Amino acid sequence: MKFIHTSDWHLGRQFHNVSLLDDQKAVLSDFIQYLKANPVDAVVIAGDIYDRSVPPTSAITLMTQTLDKICHDLATPVIVIPGNHDGAQRLGFAAQQMKESGLHIISDFDVMMKPVIIHTETAGEVAFYGMPYNDPEQVRHHYQQPISSHDEAHQWLCEQILSAANTTQKNVLISHCFVDGAMESDSERPLSIGGSDRVNSEHFKAFDYVALGHLHQPQKKGAEHIRYSGSLMKYSFSEQHQKKGMTLVELDEQGFKSATHIDFTAPHQMRIIEGELEQLLEVGKTDPHADDYLLVRLMDQHAILDPMDKLRAVYPNVLHLEKPGMLMGIEQEVGRAKLARGELDMFKDFFNEVQKTGLTEAQDQAIQSVIEQINKSKGQVE
Amino acid sequence: MKFIHTSDWHLGRQFHNVSLLDDQKAVLSDFIQYLKANPVDAVVIAGDIYDRSVPPTSAITLMTQTLDKICHDLATPVIVIPGNHDGAQRLGFAAQQMKESGLHIISDFDVMMKPVIIHTETAGEVAFYGMPYNDPEQVRHHYQQPISSHDEAHQWLCEQILSAANTTQKNVLISHCFVDGAMESDSERPLSIGGSDRVNSEHFKAFDYVALGHLHQPQKKGAEHIRYSGSLMKYSFSEQHQKKGMTLVELDEQGFKSATHIDFTAPHQMRIIEGELEQLLEVGKTDPHADDYLLVRLMDQHAILDPMDKLRAVYPNVLHLEKPGMLMGIEQEVGRAKLARGELDMFKDFFNEVQKTGLTEAQDQAIQSVIEQINKSKGQVE
Repeated sequence: MKFIHTSDWHLGRQFHNVSLLDDQKAVLSDFIQYLKANPVDAVVIAGDIYDRSVPPTSAITLMTQTLDKICHDLATPVIVIPGNHDGAQRLGFAAQQMKESGLHIISDFDVMMKPVIIHTETAGEVAFYGMPYNDPEQVRHHYQQPISSHDEAHQWLCEQILSAANTTQKNVLISHCFVDGAMESDSERPLSIGGSDRVNSEHFKAFDYVALGHLHQPQKKGAEHIRYSGSLMKYSFSEQHQKKGMTLVELDEQGFKSATHIDFTAPHQMRIIEGELEQLLEVGKTDPHADDYLLVRLMDQHAILDPMDKLRAVYPNVLHLEKPGMLMGIEQEVGRAKLARGELDMFKDFFNEVQKTGLTEAQDQAIQSVIEQINKSKGQVE
Repeated sequence: MKFIHTSDWHLGRQFHNVSLLDDQKAVLSDFIQYLKANPVDAVVIAGDIYDRSVPPTSAITLMTQTLDKICHDLATPVIVIPGNHDGAQRLGFAAQQMKESGLHIISDFDVMMKPVIIHTETAGEVAFYGMPYNDPEQVRHHYQQPISSHDEAHQWLCEQILSAANTTQKNVLISHCFVDGAMESDSERPLSIGGSDRVNSEHFKAFDYVALGHLHQPQKKGAEHIRYSGSLMKYSFSEQHQKKGMTLVELDEQGFKSATHIDFTAPHQMRIIEGELEQLLEVGKTDPHADDYLLVRLMDQHAILDPMDKLRAVYPNVLHLEKPGMLMGIEQEVGRAKLARGELDMFKDFFNEVQKTGLTEAQDQAIQSVIEQINKSKGQVE
């Protein structure tokens, strides 16, 4: 039997004040096409469906449309847990009324103990246990147990599930947590401060597969069958080299058989490009992906007027600009005991930018004399 | 066949900074008990389930629990339209996945045209058409029609439904609007300014029953079968004499048969009580409903220290205090060409309140002399 493991859709997320909803819509549309061509027995979403507990209505509408296509049109069951970004009670509205249509939103511990059973020919009955995102206080309060860390909470919840689970069937756990030793990305929100959110992967080993959410980089941790699918798309520039997509999981009568990463690529990638302005503009003219979301690192060592405008004429989606070149210029001059480029050099750069030509000798002398006068009068005031 | 027509639950509403959720929970619990004893073929909720488009999670949880009991435990279908207080897209999340369990949330015009059909022995097939709350702009935009008023919008939508409806079956319309000539209450939020929200009841006459929401007073308008069920409970003091509850509707093979108001009473009623303080406190001691939500009109014509504290010792839920007695006192004195009670009289009232006794002659002279000095010095400053 096969199922898709995905997580961290973060529908409705903004990135540098740009809405990513159209990109998310495009990736989900590709996903539906994939499912049509490659039917699976279930789709598992391991939390952070939305980017916040009260998502914008446009994100809710996209989620509704996506669920209609998977659950209704393709008749494929969907099993969802809320993540730390979701509002469990909001997401859980009328969940009981959705189950018969194959949409399972597991938003409390009581429902967690009633697995979603999928009957398959190749792996028999497969039980999906969804562990809604929780913090230690919720687990301590609900079970009246002396639980004070995420690790203890997960250990306790895993024990509850495993002691009730039927071991003659395959058991899949869905959880949204930070497994100790796994790799972070810049776009995750910490679950708690100072590393106390880490969970030991040992608690998970007895399951046939563990579908994790929270970390945005696809990865396994602790064992082949304990995995993060990673986020739906890139949510920070530092993820530029991460592969994004979903995980296709296969179980057979022995349990875990394989996990394969399926690539999905958003229309706009997030990339960092670096170089001098003229060189970047030249490359941009023939860049087929010039409308990607870009962080530009300008290496020019002289001041440039309105570099953002110039870049956006070629790369419309430059979202952030860094000028390490200018800093390098400053550092070199600091070496020569000068704190910054002098007023005359700065003005020459500016004049050159605007007039596309250097100063004449007369102009040079005129501006030097102006600068001297200003400096003299500043000296008098100070 | 019988169904319940209800509307305007406004779950999560606050009243004078007091949450009404516990009262709403109690009324809905009584409603579930009623349904257990008196099964019906459907429950229709004609909008304003919540008090705002982003309701508090406690209101969502109450709605989820109520729907679980009606749809799941009692296997009774529920048909819901959003009202002007609800967020249609938020309420419509995953609505397609709820239908098989008998929960029908109708939040767009496409779904409106697909009625919920209930098969009954006594009235044959009954089609429920839910018209989600809409403003004229939405209808104009969706149908590309020159529609500029609520009346035109409703006329157009009714025509769309009636031209598609099967007239051999019974047709019920659910709508959230202001029918022209119907009675308003203080707790409704206007749909638009200046009366342009009014809808002519003529558009509705061809239906077998019209289940209306928006107005908080139970009433029929235009015909016996065009009705408001009124709100779940009282939401303003001016509704103190309104009967609140739900409407039990009966249809047979001829169509509309009867509509009966079923009383539901919240644990705390909203009442206005009026009288002098001592008299009210005396009555309150033996009032079995002393914990109702009260507006108190104090008729005393002299100043009273901390009347709210004194009243709340007997009536814990006094939410608002008016002092028409004080105003009457002022008005009488205005008649005697005095703008207000003098400083000496005010002080005497105060002294009497605190010391439970009048001024001695020496005290009287002392305070008179202080007031004179103050007035003299005020005159000098001015």
